[in-house]
Amino acid sequence: MARAWSLKARPQGMPQHTDFAMITIPDRPLAAGEVRIANRWLSVDPYMRGRMNDVKSYVPPFVLGEPMQGGAVGEIVESNADGFAVGDKVQHMMGWRDEAVVPAAQVQKLPAIDVPEQAFLGQLGMPGMTGYFGLTEVAAAKSGDVVFVSAAAGAVGSTVVQIAKARGMTVIGSAGGADKCDWVRSLGADAVVDYKAGVPVVKALGEALKTVGADGIDVYFDNVGGEHLDAALAHARMRARFAVCGMIEVYNSGAATELRYLARLIGNRIQIRGFIVSDYMDRQADFVRDMGALVAAGTLKREETVHDGLDAMPDAFLGLFSGGNRGKMLVRV
Amino acid sequence: MARAWSLKARPQGMPQHTDFAMITIPDRPLAAGEVRIANRWLSVDPYMRGRMNDVKSYVPPFVLGEPMQGGAVGEIVESNADGFAVGDKVQHMMGWRDEAVVPAAQVQKLPAIDVPEQAFLGQLGMPGMTGYFGLTEVAAAKSGDVVFVSAAAGAVGSTVVQIAKARGMTVIGSAGGADKCDWVRSLGADAVVDYKAGVPVVKALGEALKTVGADGIDVYFDNVGGEHLDAALAHARMRARFAVCGMIEVYNSGAATELRYLARLIGNRIQIRGFIVSDYMDRQADFVRDMGALVAAGTLKREETVHDGLDAMPDAFLGLFSGGNRGKMLVRV
Repeated sequence: MARAWSLKARPQGMPQHTDFAMITIPDRPLAAGEVRIANRWLSVDPYMRGRMNDVKSYVPPFVLGEPMQGGAVGEIVESNADGFAVGDKVQHMMGWRDEAVVPAAQVQKLPAIDVPEQAFLGQLGMPGMTGYFGLTEVAAAKSGDVVFVSAAAGAVGSTVVQIAKARGMTVIGSAGGADKCDWVRSLGADAVVDYKAGVPVVKALGEALKTVGADGIDVYFDNVGGEHLDAALAHARMRARFAVCGMIEVYNSGAATELRYLARLIGNRIQIRGFIVSDYMDRQADFVRDMGALVAAGTLKREETVHDGLDAMPDAFLGLFSGGNRGKMLVRV
Repeated sequence: MARAWSLKARPQGMPQHTDFAMITIPDRPLAAGEVRIANRWLSVDPYMRGRMNDVKSYVPPFVLGEPMQGGAVGEIVESNADGFAVGDKVQHMMGWRDEAVVPAAQVQKLPAIDVPEQAFLGQLGMPGMTGYFGLTEVAAAKSGDVVFVSAAAGAVGSTVVQIAKARGMTVIGSAGGADKCDWVRSLGADAVVDYKAGVPVVKALGEALKTVGADGIDVYFDNVGGEHLDAALAHARMRARFAVCGMIEVYNSGAATELRYLARLIGNRIQIRGFIVSDYMDRQADFVRDMGALVAAGTLKREETVHDGLDAMPDAFLGLFSGGNRGKMLVRV
């Protein structure tokens, strides 16, 4: 029998371990077109917090008591679908469990490129695509732009930093703590903001801009919202573009966002756009081409924070909200 | 000698009468290319509050002790410029005074269409253009859209309501008090929100949406910011577009804007854009054509709140912040 995490109660504020319960999924024979996958890597992502609330959103809420879902990479152990064979490495969305039965139409084989399989849950998967299309399409960033990225040490942000540098932009990345900031610098960032250093982000960003000799930012890639968003408004240049894909700062608290610099929107003709990576699925080939080039050149830097074993999954998930990850947060089954 | 209002002190918070002082401008002969204009109508507009602060913005701050500036309509009483004759009706930016000496290059003759001359300070002038380009270009509003307009009884908002209706949109306008709301309805709005009625805007907008049979808004035209902006976020449909040209709610207070519904930006792919009408000056012909058609059809409704005499100018200006105007706020010299 497969084991899976289910949501036992809808969290109020920060989720607790008691909101999760391990359940078993009875074995059953495969239907036509299905495959059975032994999951090797499970993804935890901030957006999953939204699915824990019982509100209509861009993905439906998790059903209480049923297996949760999320990105996963694994190996086919039984197949009843044409074109899928035992031993194939695949990715799919039936995560939060050690074994999954999935219609083959919802399964993608991993490309045969020389990177570890779990990279397809991070920089070469949804988080990477989020960074890529957010930067290049939503914010229309171009060579010469000054780009500010929050959560720059995360799976999405670390991709944004590297794509931006590869395309000739000046990059300022924000991360929490000296270690993460060092890593963001090692990715190529021209300056960093350590948001845990006790200096307001609006001030720290101003200092960072001085060190790169710029009077403001052209692009803000927002993973966190709140104080970072306000700082970006405060330092936005004329016609700055903001791509917003996450607001981890308010996912748990549900608190109102206080913006002191919002009125700069007008005089500086700032554009703020929210987006979801799935809007760009039909453009995946562009992403694969450009990220593949970085992989081939050997310049793509990648880190993972790995928790071991299905039992550790809630720990990994909760760690996202305390800044517990450098690079992609993963669970190895 | 001409008389003019100058700024005596930079206001902190809400401007006071003591921040303004009347000064005289010594007479001088016209230089080559200049005209002398007897001003008949002077404009007061919310954006002028920004010029009272000593901060860099899209228009430079007023200089303390010098004549203030702003939109004005008047008649040429002396000309030293080719193509400009005594008696010509003109508009220009040397307002806040009874007589102005202006380079002819900064003066526009009024078009020969059958509307009162002061309309060129309102719906047929900058406020009208702001509404027109904000709605049609910045928010890319189209037939069938549900449009929410704040300050719908103001010079900009009342234009937005009428253009939106002329183009087949459903319109909900917000205004303060039953009289203004009645007027907004008379402009064609399908529903109104009375933000002074004691009901939170987010709730009142929800009710208004029910009465028009819509589940949300496609477009928000923002003149005020704050609670209205948050309500628009709360009720935004997928891919809603917000055009932001004013945040009168924070011009004086400088307070932070509290947004409870900002995270809806992401799932609903909302786009928020700040803009300034001057970005669209090269497209003025489009505006004149489309508004001219409404004028010719006799369907353009227009109101003014008029204060008499140059002495009343600070009263008129301060009235903008207490909701003292229905339609365009003007001073008749």
